[in-house]
Amino acid sequence: MGVSFAKRVELLKASEIREILKITTRPEVISFAGGLPAPELFPVEELKHAAIQVLEEAGSQALQYSTTEGYEPLRKQISQRIDAKFAVKVGAENILVTSGSQQALDFAGKLFLDAGDVVLCESPTYLAAISAFRAYEPRFVEVPTDDGGMVIEELAKILRSTERVKLIYVVPDFQNPTGRTWPEERRRQFAALIQEFKIPVIEDNPYGELRFEGRIPPSIKSFDTTGLVIYVSTFSKIFCPGMRVGWIAAAANFFEKFVLIKQGADLHTSSKSQREIAKYLELYDVDAHVRKIVEAYRRRRDAMLASMDELFPPEARHTYPQGGLFTWVELPAGYNTVELLRKCIERNVAFVPGGSFFPNGGVANTLRLNFSNMPEERIREGIGRLAQVIKEYK
Amino acid sequence: MGVSFAKRVELLKASEIREILKITTRPEVISFAGGLPAPELFPVEELKHAAIQVLEEAGSQALQYSTTEGYEPLRKQISQRIDAKFAVKVGAENILVTSGSQQALDFAGKLFLDAGDVVLCESPTYLAAISAFRAYEPRFVEVPTDDGGMVIEELAKILRSTERVKLIYVVPDFQNPTGRTWPEERRRQFAALIQEFKIPVIEDNPYGELRFEGRIPPSIKSFDTTGLVIYVSTFSKIFCPGMRVGWIAAAANFFEKFVLIKQGADLHTSSKSQREIAKYLELYDVDAHVRKIVEAYRRRRDAMLASMDELFPPEARHTYPQGGLFTWVELPAGYNTVELLRKCIERNVAFVPGGSFFPNGGVANTLRLNFSNMPEERIREGIGRLAQVIKEYK
Repeated sequence: MGVSFAKRVELLKASEIREILKITTRPEVISFAGGLPAPELFPVEELKHAAIQVLEEAGSQALQYSTTEGYEPLRKQISQRIDAKFAVKVGAENILVTSGSQQALDFAGKLFLDAGDVVLCESPTYLAAISAFRAYEPRFVEVPTDDGGMVIEELAKILRSTERVKLIYVVPDFQNPTGRTWPEERRRQFAALIQEFKIPVIEDNPYGELRFEGRIPPSIKSFDTTGLVIYVSTFSKIFCPGMRVGWIAAAANFFEKFVLIKQGADLHTSSKSQREIAKYLELYDVDAHVRKIVEAYRRRRDAMLASMDELFPPEARHTYPQGGLFTWVELPAGYNTVELLRKCIERNVAFVPGGSFFPNGGVANTLRLNFSNMPEERIREGIGRLAQVIKEYK
Repeated sequence: MGVSFAKRVELLKASEIREILKITTRPEVISFAGGLPAPELFPVEELKHAAIQVLEEAGSQALQYSTTEGYEPLRKQISQRIDAKFAVKVGAENILVTSGSQQALDFAGKLFLDAGDVVLCESPTYLAAISAFRAYEPRFVEVPTDDGGMVIEELAKILRSTERVKLIYVVPDFQNPTGRTWPEERRRQFAALIQEFKIPVIEDNPYGELRFEGRIPPSIKSFDTTGLVIYVSTFSKIFCPGMRVGWIAAAANFFEKFVLIKQGADLHTSSKSQREIAKYLELYDVDAHVRKIVEAYRRRRDAMLASMDELFPPEARHTYPQGGLFTWVELPAGYNTVELLRKCIERNVAFVPGGSFFPNGGVANTLRLNFSNMPEERIREGIGRLAQVIKEYK
């Protein structure tokens, strides 16, 4: 006998983002690597009042064990909000409050994936979703994408020719890492196709409310007639990430399994945190707060895109995100952005090499830039440094 | 194609405790079924002050993403506390803050268990640990116990004759469900045996500080010379459970894997909750608070044991817990406590049938009683009702 880990443990690797973040906490580094919201916009005073009221009104109830499903008033607020914003038509009884939306991704893996099963995802896709699913030992099949998300014809081909597809994971609004958004027609086609093949879908929408221009398209879930789409989101980007409160909106047959999984995983999400957010939503105008975030991030995006257009070599292409936190840069073949990052660190600027967003690897010339976490002049300075390193690369 | 769940999902069942709790929320029911701390003892005012200070001093930092490992000052406070109380000699760098100790159990399953691997546990053992591990499809082998915990000779026999033992799970202090405590000598023998066989151990100690009499024995971890013992505990029983803050104390080789698992599972535990607890521990005398809890629970235990001794038929045997929240009753063979519960519900009294605490089932004549959650007169009234139903059973 002796100590041996489960097979899945071999697949878990330290996140490249995290290792980079460790290097880039030095104040002289301009880091576009993180995915951090702007902390100066967190509603600290408002939350303080909400927290005091929760303890004064609910007292010990806010500190006791509570139901796995979540705090009922918060579940209702969530269901009403995602209906109003994204036409997600579910009741409070379909909302499971989770410890951040990362937990929802872990639960999706736990619910659907046996070793060797197939997950379909956008190519590239969200790094931490890959980590969450990987613990359940699936194979990833990457679906080709264009500026409007998954290419439906390619998805159809893959669905027809691939065995054991158990789950499809998509981020249709201001995707992490690319910043791209699926147009309404694409969502409709996607929903029709998955009804045909009857494959469960995780629609992950943490950024959808952070739209700088244009109208919010209906969610994929809004076109879902058979309850296959599991809608996942969070308070991290419209309120604050540190409290770790997210949710799953799912039809009853999925919902009840998720509740069992959550019981085994952590019993429930903090009663006090849930009540504080519910109280904040009750006392304050969160839409006004979101508008402030949107204003700030729009200016930052504009600064980043303008600087890139001015300073990057013309062969470097970037996406045009209409919202969210990220843009995506594709350099000519021959660039290796992991090497580029090493050179950048010497010049005190950082980003995330794009390779980690492709679960099967093999793409070396892309990178992700975050624009939400610093003022415009620092963005311009950082893009200037990055442009210089790109030009000197060869 | 079509929707299909992972194999593990067939093994997940709705918790009997939870279903019972739903029935017993009517105020006329005296429920010994839960495992709830006494809410009237939660330090609500103190926590309010701590929460205000955290937001005034740390502001947006308390609401931002933070490191997976946990809030550094809290990790230090935890490591010092478990050393002082239980002789667990680890540094802050060995402490991973988790979303309750339930999450630590889930992570242990994820780290060690492939389908078909064997977990050894006390017979009976903690219900929610069974649920957590079950998601990783192990086989459970129950180790015979006596009033001093696992019988070491039986454990040795099982270790010699069983393939694929990957993990041993024990609750040596005021065990849930039995209330039993392992004496020091038993802990020493156990530690020696697991060093010989080199099997990782989860030592789960949520109740250890709630000791009504006698001295706290050193933890099993204190006898662990090779880092095999993973010590797990929580603030749920000495502070409050609703905030969901627990921890894992583990040697570096296990610790770094747990960090990777937590990254994929929920990124980190609430920054704000961690800072609030750290602030509470800094500002207030938690030992004085624990003494208040101990006083109250001791009186409640005394009331329960005295009432049972007076009113139960002599063939009903119960444990004598020196601390914690639970006592355990064994009725003569022939009693079925699930049936007994149905009759009890009609008389407005409830408990948890013992069967669910045996992962392989087959034991029908035991039950678990909680004494922490109601005043003495109500305990006496409830035990009176229960005694009546037991006497009428046949």
